[in-house]
Amino acid sequence: MPSEFALIARHFARFTRHTELGVGDDAALIRPREGMEIAISTDMLVDGTHFLANTDPRRLGWKTAAVNFSDIAAMGGEPRWITLALALPAANEAWVGAVADGFAECCSHFGVDWIGGDTTRGPLNLCATVFGEIPVGEAIRRGGALAGDDIWISGAPGLAALGLDQLLDRKVLAGEWQQRCRDALEKPQPRIALGLALRAHVHAMLDVSDGLTGDLGHLLEASGLGATLDQSALPLAGPLAACGDAELALARVLSGGDDYELLFAAPPSERGYLEDLSAALDLPLNRIGIFETRTGLRLALADGSDCPLCARGFDHFG
Amino acid sequence: MPSEFALIARHFARFTRHTELGVGDDAALIRPREGMEIAISTDMLVDGTHFLANTDPRRLGWKTAAVNFSDIAAMGGEPRWITLALALPAANEAWVGAVADGFAECCSHFGVDWIGGDTTRGPLNLCATVFGEIPVGEAIRRGGALAGDDIWISGAPGLAALGLDQLLDRKVLAGEWQQRCRDALEKPQPRIALGLALRAHVHAMLDVSDGLTGDLGHLLEASGLGATLDQSALPLAGPLAACGDAELALARVLSGGDDYELLFAAPPSERGYLEDLSAALDLPLNRIGIFETRTGLRLALADGSDCPLCARGFDHFG
Repeated sequence: MPSEFALIARHFARFTRHTELGVGDDAALIRPREGMEIAISTDMLVDGTHFLANTDPRRLGWKTAAVNFSDIAAMGGEPRWITLALALPAANEAWVGAVADGFAECCSHFGVDWIGGDTTRGPLNLCATVFGEIPVGEAIRRGGALAGDDIWISGAPGLAALGLDQLLDRKVLAGEWQQRCRDALEKPQPRIALGLALRAHVHAMLDVSDGLTGDLGHLLEASGLGATLDQSALPLAGPLAACGDAELALARVLSGGDDYELLFAAPPSERGYLEDLSAALDLPLNRIGIFETRTGLRLALADGSDCPLCARGFDHFG
Repeated sequence: MPSEFALIARHFARFTRHTELGVGDDAALIRPREGMEIAISTDMLVDGTHFLANTDPRRLGWKTAAVNFSDIAAMGGEPRWITLALALPAANEAWVGAVADGFAECCSHFGVDWIGGDTTRGPLNLCATVFGEIPVGEAIRRGGALAGDDIWISGAPGLAALGLDQLLDRKVLAGEWQQRCRDALEKPQPRIALGLALRAHVHAMLDVSDGLTGDLGHLLEASGLGATLDQSALPLAGPLAACGDAELALARVLSGGDDYELLFAAPPSERGYLEDLSAALDLPLNRIGIFETRTGLRLALADGSDCPLCARGFDHFG
């Protein structure tokens, strides 16, 4: 069985492009570019809570990196460096190698240097910490939304949750959607280019990891506002085509987790810019509601009535 | 049972002194001082591998921060910011609160801002990532030792391992040493002031977490050298007084883990500086051997002979 040091040397020591010192010493060394501040986020992924035991390890590695990159994207930052600590029940080298390959693939794809890590024996656990650069003072926080701002969301929220429904045999999905929803769950795409392009155009932003309404609730709380979502403006077509069940599609769009789409507040004057940006990035950006001074979160229905939404997302201890 | 968000808000959101944005957004924001590079290290602590299940949670919190600070100290850096991710089998708030208090106590004691984290349900696991500042180009790496350099070690290696012997009922320790060895194991003191004072005076350095000979082996490998340790120069008196067993004392000094002392290579011209520094810091610094071009690691015995040392430390997958 390979030793801890051999495992680290073999799988964790990857080529770096903009790092002073990578894996192999007591600490890695990075040199931020002038005028930049550093955004830092850490995410821990646990067997059974964040992924299923039989998940393809290469995809698990990708996702571990991607969900961390998403946190930096949500601040309008550029992820630049990442570390990975790993607890393993036994030194299964093929499995570790596949996780490392998937993690490195995601890093390489988004131009991030993998600079260090730790391996230990223990129940399966992956903990990554990511470092991004943002020009000083330009980070997009959660608390800046204004009444009258539009609520926007990128991509196709709900597909990842339908992918989990499928994996857990709760729902059979239609044809091509089977793979698409599985990909949304297992290989999320952090919206880094979008986050960078939104700097100076939006008032507040976060990434949707725990479900649209739950995460919107965090943004409302931080901004001291309420909001109304417009049911007819929600991107329901994809989820509906996937599952053929209007009620389930709505539930997954509103409160499915693991989307890693960006949810943001922009003034109406930015609508033209955002529509052009959507075309330029080939990424749907849907304007789904409006921020209001009236507290609470409501869903405006097609018949003109509205109903209160319980702003609860996925909570590991809920 | 408190929710994840309530746990984070209640226990993880601490006062910060030199941080732009702490706990509560997608990422924390820090602004490194001009002329500094950032040293980054991550350590994962697992129940049964790194600590016993019944460890005082406040001390566990302290140790989780301290072992990370030690990695920055070993580069000659000043730890400035830290994150903590935590997996818990159940939301035991009193336990989490005590871990958080101990972690915060260690941060506060060493002037480090706790800037973020993650909590999730899962088998007990603590993963901290620390960020230190070092003037550009001044980090002390492992690979710079020269033949003829002295080998130095700080403090009292071996006491932590004797503390573990005691906890596991493998050895009864003498009087006052019972608490002292337990403290060495459970409340290690990162040698931050020492590390800072060694910059520009030493050629190579690391912290001893896996045992003196094992970690010295890493330094030898990185520097392409061999070494001879002088048995009569080892700080054996404390461990011998603690356990009353010369063979056990020697074994624990040479290969006990969890010491978090600094091991470094300095030219003979620095002996005076290091003796003065030892007095100034009120911290033993022992000159225990010499780096040589002859490969391998040897122990020179009192009778003038020497024996080869197997340079193996603690390896989680060994």
